[in-house]
Amino acid sequence: MTDDEAFTVTPYEVEGDVDYEKLLDEFGADRLTDEQISAFPKPTHPLVRRKVFYAERDVDRFLEAVNTENPHSLVTGRGPSGLMHIGHVFPFYFAKYIQKQTNALVYIPISDDEKYLLKDLPLEKIDGHTRENLRDILAVGFDPDRTRIIVDTADADVVYPLATAFAKEVTQATVDATYGAPPNIGISFYPAVQAVHLLLPQLVDGRHPTLVPIAVDQDPHIRVCRDIASKQRYNVNKPGALLSKFLPSLGGPGKMSSSDDAPSIFLSDDRETVFEKIRQFGFSGGQSSVEAHREQGGDPTIDVSYQFLAYFFEESDDRLDQLAREYRDGSLLSGELKDIAATQIADFLEEHQRRRAEVGSLANELMPYRLTENERSRARKRVGYPTDAVVEW
Amino acid sequence: MTDDEAFTVTPYEVEGDVDYEKLLDEFGADRLTDEQISAFPKPTHPLVRRKVFYAERDVDRFLEAVNTENPHSLVTGRGPSGLMHIGHVFPFYFAKYIQKQTNALVYIPISDDEKYLLKDLPLEKIDGHTRENLRDILAVGFDPDRTRIIVDTADADVVYPLATAFAKEVTQATVDATYGAPPNIGISFYPAVQAVHLLLPQLVDGRHPTLVPIAVDQDPHIRVCRDIASKQRYNVNKPGALLSKFLPSLGGPGKMSSSDDAPSIFLSDDRETVFEKIRQFGFSGGQSSVEAHREQGGDPTIDVSYQFLAYFFEESDDRLDQLAREYRDGSLLSGELKDIAATQIADFLEEHQRRRAEVGSLANELMPYRLTENERSRARKRVGYPTDAVVEW
Repeated sequence: MTDDEAFTVTPYEVEGDVDYEKLLDEFGADRLTDEQISAFPKPTHPLVRRKVFYAERDVDRFLEAVNTENPHSLVTGRGPSGLMHIGHVFPFYFAKYIQKQTNALVYIPISDDEKYLLKDLPLEKIDGHTRENLRDILAVGFDPDRTRIIVDTADADVVYPLATAFAKEVTQATVDATYGAPPNIGISFYPAVQAVHLLLPQLVDGRHPTLVPIAVDQDPHIRVCRDIASKQRYNVNKPGALLSKFLPSLGGPGKMSSSDDAPSIFLSDDRETVFEKIRQFGFSGGQSSVEAHREQGGDPTIDVSYQFLAYFFEESDDRLDQLAREYRDGSLLSGELKDIAATQIADFLEEHQRRRAEVGSLANELMPYRLTENERSRARKRVGYPTDAVVEW
Repeated sequence: MTDDEAFTVTPYEVEGDVDYEKLLDEFGADRLTDEQISAFPKPTHPLVRRKVFYAERDVDRFLEAVNTENPHSLVTGRGPSGLMHIGHVFPFYFAKYIQKQTNALVYIPISDDEKYLLKDLPLEKIDGHTRENLRDILAVGFDPDRTRIIVDTADADVVYPLATAFAKEVTQATVDATYGAPPNIGISFYPAVQAVHLLLPQLVDGRHPTLVPIAVDQDPHIRVCRDIASKQRYNVNKPGALLSKFLPSLGGPGKMSSSDDAPSIFLSDDRETVFEKIRQFGFSGGQSSVEAHREQGGDPTIDVSYQFLAYFFEESDDRLDQLAREYRDGSLLSGELKDIAATQIADFLEEHQRRRAEVGSLANELMPYRLTENERSRARKRVGYPTDAVVEW
């Protein structure tokens, strides 16, 4: 990209310097207001009160259900294209936090189909990533009674019939206009599968507000699904969305991705690796020498270590303000700030890895999170299939 | 269509007077040769020896397997858009006939997904047609040990993962060029599902020749599937095809369809209805008066009653020749020929209906024809999924 102003954001591509405000205009989502933020259950999650989740669709309806103790759900998924890094795990910890506060249903779709169709990887690799990612998701510690994990190809008995129903409502022209030309006919169809992901809580448990906490580049999926839901053929609410900025990559602003030049911090990284990566690659807002830094101070708004802390890893607002102050006045050096961030991240990862190590046989561990036969049947019927399947004929 | 020469043949549309020869050039299939016909097991089925099946792809490979008693299979399916008429049931009786002769595997896919996506019918209606059609297919009397019936949405646990694998090999541009612009993204994806149908016998039971006896308008599905198979990612033969002309509609040449002006003869029609329909609507090759007919004789090649007999309902070639002779020389009147055809068809339908009435609970009756868990697992593994599904993790 040569034009500084230009940026491209689709679910399949993020390029250039993202202008988050312009994106809202383009997508037609709304900025998250202070009033909405204050309506979240207390204590307010840092990702909300610090406006990492900065925009929304229909969040009011979700918050009203939360505050009147009516049914409500969150959907947050994963495309198993590789190992998970810290940018991938936020929405899961956020969903678990809300679930603990409000007893929310949480649905976690794993789009192994989409990733096979998009990436130059064999099914075997996708399968391996799926298993590793599932272990990470299980390590987050969701309530199995209130959480369902769906793997597209492994739960195809319910995913495909529902996707077929929704696919009838979506033209190829809509998909082309929303996502660009698809690389293959599996990706042409995939928005219908994504609609299943977002509507599934309501199809299983009846109409209620659903919130999808998701990076803003995934918003087109929400829009296509909202269009399907608004056609009134099904008794569902349009899914709401809580749209986040991208966690900065170690190398600086932009979406953290394994394909950037700077490495990502993976959920499997040990303490030493975290420190090495941040020390070596962490984009700094400080000055080029200690003397200059003591003199002029640093800029926390572009410093990746500070951003990591501010996005997620430092819970205390007071402590965060203090760090920003000390960084700006030069009393906190870049190296010191890096080590603070590395410590917080390594602590978080060690805790995560400890729980992950306790996850036993995947088949056994997943069982309580899988849709029951009864739930599958309810979803099929709510979409319009008169019977459960051949077995009921 | 105003241009006499123009005709359109795609799996979704047949319009105009079909030039069967031109179609072969266009599609790139080959005319069925006398040598090939003579290589079919004896007695040769009338649809073959009378060249209703008039063209082929890779039929030699299939016949070689038949004649060396090596594994081979037939695939013939049904799109449940309505009640079945006599034009729909030919390929099933043909497949059963071959199965009895050669012990062939027969796979019968039911594309309820495609029909929902194409027709303005709710899922409930499609489901009803699916059940009725299944009863007709069960009435044909296939060997349950050598026959598998697959319903796309009911067997989605195996159909969708395999279709996803194949979808990666097919571009939207190929689909657009082959079928025209799809009405929705389900139809964009459907060629991948169709490829599952055609490759499933090999995916379940290992590489072997498969023959698809099918009306020539469905050939594009074969071509797309052959392209997938030729990419060598999977250890399968390209499916072969035996392409048929269209059974004439009662109103005259062209594809028999419930949407024509003249009614179709449904498998559920009783004797009286068959006689009424043929007498009232059967396009005649005779003269306008008995006197003129006695004088000038009729033309069996355009007479629908004669065509019905010749295509399928009169087994004896001698009897057929005799009828043609008598019709041409005027000794056999149109009304008499109609009654002969009506009698044969009504006899056939009564026999079919008798067996259909014996079909009990659909769930029970279908059970022996459904893919076993082991067969599903083998198909998944042959496509490249390393494990059976989540249950094996």
